[in-house]
Amino acid sequence: MIHGGGKIATELGEALGIKAQMVDGKRITDAETLKVVTMVYAGLINKTIVAKLQALHTNAIGLTGADANLIRAKKRLDPVTDWGYVGDVNSDDLTLDNLMAIMAAGFIPVFCAITHDGKGSLLNTNADTIAATLAGALAKAGFEVSLVYCFEKKGVMKDVNDDKSVIKTLNLAVYNQLRASGVVNMGMIPKLDNAFHSLEEGVNEVKICMAEDVHDFLNAGTSITK
Amino acid sequence: MIHGGGKIATELGEALGIKAQMVDGKRITDAETLKVVTMVYAGLINKTIVAKLQALHTNAIGLTGADANLIRAKKRLDPVTDWGYVGDVNSDDLTLDNLMAIMAAGFIPVFCAITHDGKGSLLNTNADTIAATLAGALAKAGFEVSLVYCFEKKGVMKDVNDDKSVIKTLNLAVYNQLRASGVVNMGMIPKLDNAFHSLEEGVNEVKICMAEDVHDFLNAGTSITK
Repeated sequence: MIHGGGKIATELGEALGIKAQMVDGKRITDAETLKVVTMVYAGLINKTIVAKLQALHTNAIGLTGADANLIRAKKRLDPVTDWGYVGDVNSDDLTLDNLMAIMAAGFIPVFCAITHDGKGSLLNTNADTIAATLAGALAKAGFEVSLVYCFEKKGVMKDVNDDKSVIKTLNLAVYNQLRASGVVNMGMIPKLDNAFHSLEEGVNEVKICMAEDVHDFLNAGTSITK
Repeated sequence: MIHGGGKIATELGEALGIKAQMVDGKRITDAETLKVVTMVYAGLINKTIVAKLQALHTNAIGLTGADANLIRAKKRLDPVTDWGYVGDVNSDDLTLDNLMAIMAAGFIPVFCAITHDGKGSLLNTNADTIAATLAGALAKAGFEVSLVYCFEKKGVMKDVNDDKSVIKTLNLAVYNQLRASGVVNMGMIPKLDNAFHSLEEGVNEVKICMAEDVHDFLNAGTSITK
């Protein structure tokens, strides 16, 4: 499991007088904002989820990419925007052996969207990208992987205000069409780009559905296919 | 390794308008305070330490007692004071098998002072007590255990303002004398009580020293002996 927590991070930041600075829906992470997202993602949200899973007898273990050196990221270098402590990952930056050891011991990994640079700094990384990168790396390592994105909508929709307009199946050709014609909501584009990328890396299936429907993800939401 | 972080928690709480309520140096933990300590201990401090240890090529993994169900605690029931989400632990509340699995995989556990009740709630637990409880449980399981308490003083001192007044060796009889005569500082009493308790549980040696001297803990600070 991989989770974010941007809304709560924005709320805490505002309570502390630290305004969220967003560019294209992504958070610029200065030193004070890094503290806020580390507290919210790795502390409050991650450990609350773990405690609730433990109460359901799921032996969860909460992790950042720094723990057991699981996910190293590279500080984003962008000539236009100074992103601060934002880190980008790719599948070479994972220590899969350590993740395997954790799973082999019977623990269910619960990741938040905090990684590290291996030189002592934590970094803020997009949760959807971590999910796709982990899924791709596990597929390359020979696992059968299903990647399920959960969010507050019923799936990818033709009309964002009509729950019945869920697109059941979306392939790359149709996606490119819908994207060009502006039908796909801006906020969905990073998620969908990640989804198609992970199919290329060998992930079996990708679903995008509402969090409440995850127990029935085979039937719910939008299937992403090549 | 087990760490606290009370001062930073108090600072964050104050910035959020949540006043620290202390009774005998211990923090009353209402629902909002639980969020604060979870953010600071399990998020900010724990993951910052882990990232810095990783940069030193120490394969640290940051943990609460909820992770891998390692430390369950019991909500404190006190007829006088409502402690809120404060949890007490004893050695029966540890899942040592899971801790062993984590260490056998080559990871160095870094605990913060957050535990859980197994029913979905996180709890705030004294870090010194977690350290003593873990040390005692590991000793009972047959390990050779040294327990080193690090803090901002040179050791247990006869005169808290004189760094040269460190008591090199302290046994229970002398401790009881000093305590009765008021020589031992109030803040030291829980640490020392924990220290003597863990010796009873089979811990080989207990040291109390300044954090900066931990690399030389055999020679530094105060040795606690039966």
